[in-house]
Amino acid sequence: MGEFELLARMRERLPAAGHRLLLGSGDDAAIAAPQGATATSVDTLVDGVHFRREWSSLPQIGRKALATALSDLAAMGAEPGEAYVALGAPPDIDEEGCLELVEGMIELATATGTALAGGDLTRAPTLTLAVTVVGHAADPEQLVTRGGARPGDVLALTGEIGGAAAGLLLLEEGRGRARAPENEHASLIARQLEPEPRLEAGRALAAAGATAMIDVSDGVGGDARHLAERSAVAVRIEAASLPLAIGTAEVAAAAGRDPLQLAVSGGEDYELLVALPPERLHGAVAAVAETEATLTLIGEVLAGEGVEIRRPGGELLKARGFDQLD
Amino acid sequence: MGEFELLARMRERLPAAGHRLLLGSGDDAAIAAPQGATATSVDTLVDGVHFRREWSSLPQIGRKALATALSDLAAMGAEPGEAYVALGAPPDIDEEGCLELVEGMIELATATGTALAGGDLTRAPTLTLAVTVVGHAADPEQLVTRGGARPGDVLALTGEIGGAAAGLLLLEEGRGRARAPENEHASLIARQLEPEPRLEAGRALAAAGATAMIDVSDGVGGDARHLAERSAVAVRIEAASLPLAIGTAEVAAAAGRDPLQLAVSGGEDYELLVALPPERLHGAVAAVAETEATLTLIGEVLAGEGVEIRRPGGELLKARGFDQLD
Repeated sequence: MGEFELLARMRERLPAAGHRLLLGSGDDAAIAAPQGATATSVDTLVDGVHFRREWSSLPQIGRKALATALSDLAAMGAEPGEAYVALGAPPDIDEEGCLELVEGMIELATATGTALAGGDLTRAPTLTLAVTVVGHAADPEQLVTRGGARPGDVLALTGEIGGAAAGLLLLEEGRGRARAPENEHASLIARQLEPEPRLEAGRALAAAGATAMIDVSDGVGGDARHLAERSAVAVRIEAASLPLAIGTAEVAAAAGRDPLQLAVSGGEDYELLVALPPERLHGAVAAVAETEATLTLIGEVLAGEGVEIRRPGGELLKARGFDQLD
Repeated sequence: MGEFELLARMRERLPAAGHRLLLGSGDDAAIAAPQGATATSVDTLVDGVHFRREWSSLPQIGRKALATALSDLAAMGAEPGEAYVALGAPPDIDEEGCLELVEGMIELATATGTALAGGDLTRAPTLTLAVTVVGHAADPEQLVTRGGARPGDVLALTGEIGGAAAGLLLLEEGRGRARAPENEHASLIARQLEPEPRLEAGRALAAAGATAMIDVSDGVGGDARHLAERSAVAVRIEAASLPLAIGTAEVAAAAGRDPLQLAVSGGEDYELLVALPPERLHGAVAAVAETEATLTLIGEVLAGEGVEIRRPGGELLKARGFDQLD
């Protein structure tokens, strides 16, 4: 099967163009008619850097590549629109393998209302997926950047963190030291391999008055720093308030790791870290609850600069991973 | 230098956000306010597959990655808008190297009015650049797909072909068999390493009534087939009419290759192949001439299917490369 035939087979599996997408994959470019504002982001997954093929099925890898890209749209409060996929396939991934990768994307695309609108398929020595996603809003003012947090705002977090890092420990250590409670083993690994972009919660938070928002991909410590820097504010987080995924503490302890440290620096949870005026917190909690997520108050925004994460006793937690190349 | 500091240094070199780009690189997503229709395409270059680092400087590689992506916008007749770059850098490309790659992009972005609006930087075993470009038009009807050619249309080609393939032969064979005339050596190699997207010619052709258009990346034989298939027509090309880049014949002959075969299957010329109603040809030639390119009549569109390329004596030329994975 040549490239063109494979592309044709991929296109057969794609849903028809949506209401904004006038012409999908198969031409020099896709044609869309956006109305209002767009939010566009690109995210790359590389084998051995962001995933390992021995841990993930090909559909899981395709799905995660789209999920991590969509998570950036969630953090803007944008409605997902189109995705464009650059797939570099190594020689040992055949045509069926490429289709499996795409199947994983289609599943999440369908669930989130994203149109797979175009792509590029090429040979590469290592499996590489670069996914560009375009989200939409009626007005640019509806989109939430990292830069709008103000002293006096509260800081809140959707869902639970640490789960993806605990799942990674379980995968790395196999049946070894890291042990999760029986019931949590699969869900922690799923947090690592099958992240869910918080698209609905992101839109709910944007509508509820979020002043700044970022998705937690590098770890809440590093991502809080990004938000603080772009907003030119300081951020204080109470470590005791951080909502840890169930099982994280046990896995961390079994691996000889500090659970809070793991949760703060582990990353890949793809939850949303959000700043809100204090009077908006109550409404935001209710709005996020309607999306089947939770919203937890974890800290506050102050004048100044930098990020402080305090343990219950007042000791500062130094989060790693603030400045690493991923 | 960490990822974030490097990204900050890259951002310093980018021009300010343009008229459509409201928020550029540095947040979860870029924010734009497109008016009318968008054309979006992604193109990937991988070391060892699409380029060789021993032949190209890093700025040349960055420039070519953007050029090949923009060529797809040229083929739609779109105005270039924004580019999003996924850069996978191997360990031996340091921060300065990444900046050099970006410098090459900035040069072409500035020349073409493209805003480098976002990106993702990651470690990868092999240098990989996936560039997503967004082009604009006031109305979707102004964009030219591959699918509108009609029997009776004429087929025309901008510029000259074969030069990129001849340049590749010169690079591959070094000072060996392939010999270009002294004056053409550098220009043939530039055709291979520094392709120019035909953005202005593409817009001129769209305005002049093009019914279908495609950029010649796979070779005029293969790309004519794409156009014919999407338009559900047949295409006949007179090989004697093909505008060969100066020096192509000599390089092909020295390498024991048929010059026409090389020009038809060589690819990477990034010229535009366009179908036009015959009464529009004259105006199109004049419009393209104003962009400092030429437009040559090379064939016709017929009812039926398939692509025929005839040599002067009537013999059919079988173009290779129609169905290869690039």
